[in-house]
Amino acid sequence: MVVKVYGPAFACPKRVLACLIEKEVEFEAVPLDFLKGEHKDPEFLKLQPFGTVPVTQDGDYVLYESRAIMRYYAEKYKSQGTDLLGKTIEERGQVENWVEVEAHNFNPPIFNLTLHVMFSSKLGFPRDENVIKESEEKLGKVLDIYEERLSKSKYLAGDFFSLADLTHLPFTQYLVGPIGKEHMITSRKHVNAWWNDISNRPSWQKVLQLYDAPL
Amino acid sequence: MVVKVYGPAFACPKRVLACLIEKEVEFEAVPLDFLKGEHKDPEFLKLQPFGTVPVTQDGDYVLYESRAIMRYYAEKYKSQGTDLLGKTIEERGQVENWVEVEAHNFNPPIFNLTLHVMFSSKLGFPRDENVIKESEEKLGKVLDIYEERLSKSKYLAGDFFSLADLTHLPFTQYLVGPIGKEHMITSRKHVNAWWNDISNRPSWQKVLQLYDAPL
Repeated sequence: MVVKVYGPAFACPKRVLACLIEKEVEFEAVPLDFLKGEHKDPEFLKLQPFGTVPVTQDGDYVLYESRAIMRYYAEKYKSQGTDLLGKTIEERGQVENWVEVEAHNFNPPIFNLTLHVMFSSKLGFPRDENVIKESEEKLGKVLDIYEERLSKSKYLAGDFFSLADLTHLPFTQYLVGPIGKEHMITSRKHVNAWWNDISNRPSWQKVLQLYDAPL
Repeated sequence: MVVKVYGPAFACPKRVLACLIEKEVEFEAVPLDFLKGEHKDPEFLKLQPFGTVPVTQDGDYVLYESRAIMRYYAEKYKSQGTDLLGKTIEERGQVENWVEVEAHNFNPPIFNLTLHVMFSSKLGFPRDENVIKESEEKLGKVLDIYEERLSKSKYLAGDFFSLADLTHLPFTQYLVGPIGKEHMITSRKHVNAWWNDISNRPSWQKVLQLYDAPL
């Protein structure tokens, strides 16, 4: 069964695409035009009542929320492709710890940077320089903690690549590219080595090749 | 080994306590006084570099982020106490879907209500009526989607109680209690039945009995 992934051009769905490529799971991308309001279409809302992406559809089985979808496919195809959950329950615990750190510490400031630097004019709201400044400061503090962590282990959850690293790819790609704050990564030795490692994985390069344009 | 849980009086650690009680895992609560800055103590920051709670310490094994900790103990003691993850990979996928909905759709507005209604004077920042109004509107829309969902299945992830339900307990308890917006639950038939069910579980009643005071 080919897995349908809705909204491939957006950041969160790109997490899912990278995960599916790592797991060697075949997928079909289904584009959605947010500016035309396709995410509020009644048929789409039957799949995802909150009107956001990604959604995956695998026969009758529908899932949403990028981090939930990644966990499901990483578990379903545990022995296929790259193991993304760790080998033991304790390793998986660390993966979950750092997936949650990404969601609750890393994502809020980098999401605000994305919104105000990349999308304010497109979406028609004022770019707020205070939000940008505060978000950069908060993100810097988070990255200082990552720097310390990555001085002790090669990846966030330990010495193995996992969902904890993969989940950082889409928004960090914006940070070093269109947001124009690559220095936040390159100025931190271990964070920089980690970023070079994970962003050069064939899975992520493939995602960028297929769906580069940030929307 | 007794599991140490730091910060039992706060909302997010209460998720972990309810989970440990459901899983019949023995724990020891370690109070932290945020007003005295104990969460920024260098010794505490060695356990949790972001300076937040909960943290669990199980011998040498340290975890943080409430939803990660719940997943770890629910998995580690899969066959002990209440099964909180579903019986199949597909059921677990739905659990993850709704845990993530709680984290990204339900929690932001209810957290803002908590902050502005319950804690603004204590923490010394102005209560913002606009934030309160907008948060209530957003939360109402989320609860409308829950109402629809819970008209089709008894619990959020299906016809079984799981982490997806349990994760809602602490902040919904604030909503119907000190926030004073019980009508948001009682006015929605299926949400109300669900809330009566999950909030009357012995695990949650035990948590309230031990650590009732909202801090």
